[in-house]
Amino acid sequence: MKVFVIGANGNIGRLISQQLNEKGEEVVAGIRKPEQAAFFEDHDIKTAHVDLLGRPEEMGVTLDGFDAIIFTAGSGGKTGDDMTLLVDLDGAVKSMQAAEIAGVKRYIMVSALWAENRNRWNDAIRPYYAAKFYADEWLRTRTNLDYTIVEPGALTFDKGVGKINISGVEGGSVAREDVARTVVALLDQPQTIKRTIPVITGDTPIKEALKNV
Amino acid sequence: MKVFVIGANGNIGRLISQQLNEKGEEVVAGIRKPEQAAFFEDHDIKTAHVDLLGRPEEMGVTLDGFDAIIFTAGSGGKTGDDMTLLVDLDGAVKSMQAAEIAGVKRYIMVSALWAENRNRWNDAIRPYYAAKFYADEWLRTRTNLDYTIVEPGALTFDKGVGKINISGVEGGSVAREDVARTVVALLDQPQTIKRTIPVITGDTPIKEALKNV
Repeated sequence: MKVFVIGANGNIGRLISQQLNEKGEEVVAGIRKPEQAAFFEDHDIKTAHVDLLGRPEEMGVTLDGFDAIIFTAGSGGKTGDDMTLLVDLDGAVKSMQAAEIAGVKRYIMVSALWAENRNRWNDAIRPYYAAKFYADEWLRTRTNLDYTIVEPGALTFDKGVGKINISGVEGGSVAREDVARTVVALLDQPQTIKRTIPVITGDTPIKEALKNV
Repeated sequence: MKVFVIGANGNIGRLISQQLNEKGEEVVAGIRKPEQAAFFEDHDIKTAHVDLLGRPEEMGVTLDGFDAIIFTAGSGGKTGDDMTLLVDLDGAVKSMQAAEIAGVKRYIMVSALWAENRNRWNDAIRPYYAAKFYADEWLRTRTNLDYTIVEPGALTFDKGVGKINISGVEGGSVAREDVARTVVALLDQPQTIKRTIPVITGDTPIKEALKNV
């Protein structure tokens, strides 16, 4: 499977890229800056330049020929909410439009737990949740992509345990490593298409959990 | 006609409220802070509290019984883009949801010229345009409101001339007073429903221009 990772240099993006590579998939890490390439070269992973501030048409050329796109880019806490608007929201929507231009049907969005419910947004970072909400809503209602929206709980740097809960989730945390494993595992699972899946650390092996999505 | 103005204390909001009042319409100025009421009391205009950071359900109670809603709120340049996300985008969408909850069909959005075309956004304030774009798109595609989106060109404090251009508009400026007149004039004009109307200073009297929208 030929997979393009947008936001590959993020914590989850690196894990996803490595896991896909180890699994033998043909992965290309989409990066913003040339100096981000070194990490991927060290792991024998190809890179390509992606500019989320650019045009969907340009991005569409880059995405041509891929089987799936994983969006895990985020402007992060170091930039202002101008970038939250232009990257996490508008950049995400551009990547969906680029996927459609390129004819790539499968699209995985890494979102955040409860992004779909304004009443449960984390008060400390409401603008971030708003951006995620409108990006996710565009994916659900304005595209014909075979999407899956993954909503991890509070992210930790713990070692992954390979077990998750995805039903009846109210809150909780999850290792980034297990979020990456979940994304990699659901890529070719058709029952996850057009679904929004909350993910926290749990007691069911990832593959098994995804069977009953 | 019973009209509720959201963002009434802004420059355009005040003009719209005053013009509606002079025309004999039953206008209520939606304001955020109690101290904003003085201006409207001086002009014999009723006020009501609106919190765009609150819940649509609460706003819906306030909007109950009105014939039309005009949204002209904006967080402005003095606050950060966190408020651009939470007021100009999410606050706007909440007001649409509130309109639907209250059963108010007519909804006028004051937007910005070319908000619908990412390639023409003003580079200096792209986050603002992104917020307007996603709010306008929600109005167009996610509601059943009888909306009109008004897209003024560069806003001036000039005295209005009562004449506008709305077709073949590429760019230009317009007095806030004429934007307000345009909004007031199109409120009861059914041919403006579900239309996006660019507005710049021009040579056609406002009412006449709106006939051929």
